[in-house]
Amino acid sequence: MQPYSPGKPIDEVKRELGLTDVVKLASNENPLGPSPKAVEAVKRAAEEMHLYPDAGAYQLKERLSQHLDLPPEQIMVGNGSDELIHMLGSIFLSGPEDNIVVGDPSFVRYDAAAQLSDSQLIKVPVTSNLKLDLSAMAKAATEHTKLVWIANPNNPTGTLVSKLEVDELLTKLPAQTVVVLDEAYFEFASDQAKYPNSLDYVRAGKPVIGLRTFSKAYGLAGIRIGYGFASIEIVDAINRAREPFNANLLAQAAAIAALDDQEFLNRTVQLNAEGRAQLNEAFRAVGSKPVESFANFVLADLGIPAKPVFEALLREGVIVRSGHVLGLPNYLRVSIGTKIENERFGIALSRVMAAQGKS
Amino acid sequence: MQPYSPGKPIDEVKRELGLTDVVKLASNENPLGPSPKAVEAVKRAAEEMHLYPDAGAYQLKERLSQHLDLPPEQIMVGNGSDELIHMLGSIFLSGPEDNIVVGDPSFVRYDAAAQLSDSQLIKVPVTSNLKLDLSAMAKAATEHTKLVWIANPNNPTGTLVSKLEVDELLTKLPAQTVVVLDEAYFEFASDQAKYPNSLDYVRAGKPVIGLRTFSKAYGLAGIRIGYGFASIEIVDAINRAREPFNANLLAQAAAIAALDDQEFLNRTVQLNAEGRAQLNEAFRAVGSKPVESFANFVLADLGIPAKPVFEALLREGVIVRSGHVLGLPNYLRVSIGTKIENERFGIALSRVMAAQGKS
Repeated sequence: MQPYSPGKPIDEVKRELGLTDVVKLASNENPLGPSPKAVEAVKRAAEEMHLYPDAGAYQLKERLSQHLDLPPEQIMVGNGSDELIHMLGSIFLSGPEDNIVVGDPSFVRYDAAAQLSDSQLIKVPVTSNLKLDLSAMAKAATEHTKLVWIANPNNPTGTLVSKLEVDELLTKLPAQTVVVLDEAYFEFASDQAKYPNSLDYVRAGKPVIGLRTFSKAYGLAGIRIGYGFASIEIVDAINRAREPFNANLLAQAAAIAALDDQEFLNRTVQLNAEGRAQLNEAFRAVGSKPVESFANFVLADLGIPAKPVFEALLREGVIVRSGHVLGLPNYLRVSIGTKIENERFGIALSRVMAAQGKS
Repeated sequence: MQPYSPGKPIDEVKRELGLTDVVKLASNENPLGPSPKAVEAVKRAAEEMHLYPDAGAYQLKERLSQHLDLPPEQIMVGNGSDELIHMLGSIFLSGPEDNIVVGDPSFVRYDAAAQLSDSQLIKVPVTSNLKLDLSAMAKAATEHTKLVWIANPNNPTGTLVSKLEVDELLTKLPAQTVVVLDEAYFEFASDQAKYPNSLDYVRAGKPVIGLRTFSKAYGLAGIRIGYGFASIEIVDAINRAREPFNANLLAQAAAIAALDDQEFLNRTVQLNAEGRAQLNEAFRAVGSKPVESFANFVLADLGIPAKPVFEALLREGVIVRSGHVLGLPNYLRVSIGTKIENERFGIALSRVMAAQGKS
């Protein structure tokens, strides 16, 4: 197992390349910063950070219960949804006889969670238009498949699967298989009519686990807080497996405040929609083909290897993700930034692509 | 496996008993609050909490490297040392054939970490004066013992093992066994001449892992940050198993600032020494026998069942830990508070014990 390779930090790029002005559009962070209400809550809670967090996250779960209209007993809270992914792997998977079904490419932490239990990965390629292939994933599942992981929107492709596709998947899977709908980018996609809200499946008692996070739309990636919902039995198993103080005091306070910051959420979603159009345009201007995105990043087919483009963009002070580390060697994944950041990316991209003889 | 049962939260006690003025001396938190330098650092970092933390905790490890005089490659950082305990269990233990050796009683999270891997617990009773019995622990170890857990000072007893005892343990253990010296209360005990500093063993290449935390002496329990040091191989295995963003951005900033707050640390240790004498005196005044403590709490033998005393103290608005949940039914564990909090405990204890006919 290899350690996870996150986006290059700004400081590192400045240091290595001798640059002073660097923008990072690589980790799908919120370009507006954190929710201001969450910042205030954290500053208040900092004075009490000598106290252990509430091990039951009582107040946060009450607030989430109200937000989701679901009993608190069906809600779990993690040190980021990353921790929930990790724990779901550990409670569902016992060893080499078990397997999970994942898209290829999809979020790499699903693979890591299975590898920790020495379980098998069944990787199912995405369709030609880079969507998760749910019918192929259903076919790939065996009687030893414990979890099917669906990131919706999918990372790194930004694509969506529909209600119809999820409904069909659920009818086809073996009885013991549970579907995880990882909705890290939920807030950017849930206005789509065909969006299959995990909450509806959980409410209906289907074998589905929903995962969401405060890292993206609420701008709280640094403080680590994510949540999920599922049957009481699954949530209870997570509660037994988790460390009692996994969700820190400041994160609990920040999340509660962020849920009340509807204005910030609206601004974030609005800015994201505008920025998505900007990035699509920037890619098309150099002859690249953006994949239709429902998330806060855009993946595009450059038609040439992405690695040298990624490196040339770095020298321009713009950090993005190169597809060569994502299993898509000709693609670039760019997080949607502010208007000015997106413009800067567009200018840098056109300069770099011209140098590559591509525009 | 049962979920962990933490100290009762102040709010819950107020709600349940209709009290307004409640002190909590139950979770070994810092009565001075958090390090003021750490509070400032958190407030600054809150503005940037939309960014993911540095997955390598580069700056914190550099600062710890300097603090410990040990290469950063030998240092690991966790979401509290609880997470490191959990991860050590997962990387060292594979299943029912493996076992760990722990004191009885000792910190309960060691047991939980083994149970997650379905591994065996070999519990070795403490000596008659409640010290971890290292020679009995050495005898109990088998060729399947992967870890021997030594909390030093031990929780919940507050007792210390000496350099001589640890040296001897290391000569007696099977070749594959690694000793974890959990030094959560290091800063309260390390002035003892006989104190076996885990760092010395790690530096000497012994099969020892040291664990420390910012939760106690630095007053950062709520933000979750702990660290450990070991061989490069062990640290590398932890880095492969951990979630990349396990240590949050604010915790990394708080920890760096706290390490520079020597003045706060000195005040904490000083206040703790004074408070320990106060609590010892309060216990002796009612005929109870305090165990000599090297930590920030005092355990005492009441000579009668502790549960009704604990409950009567709750009604007086003083939350402590009852030994009936710690495997010591006649004992009470009281965290050292401020001078006023300790006085309040003493008065409440004498009232409660008088009602029990014990003074």
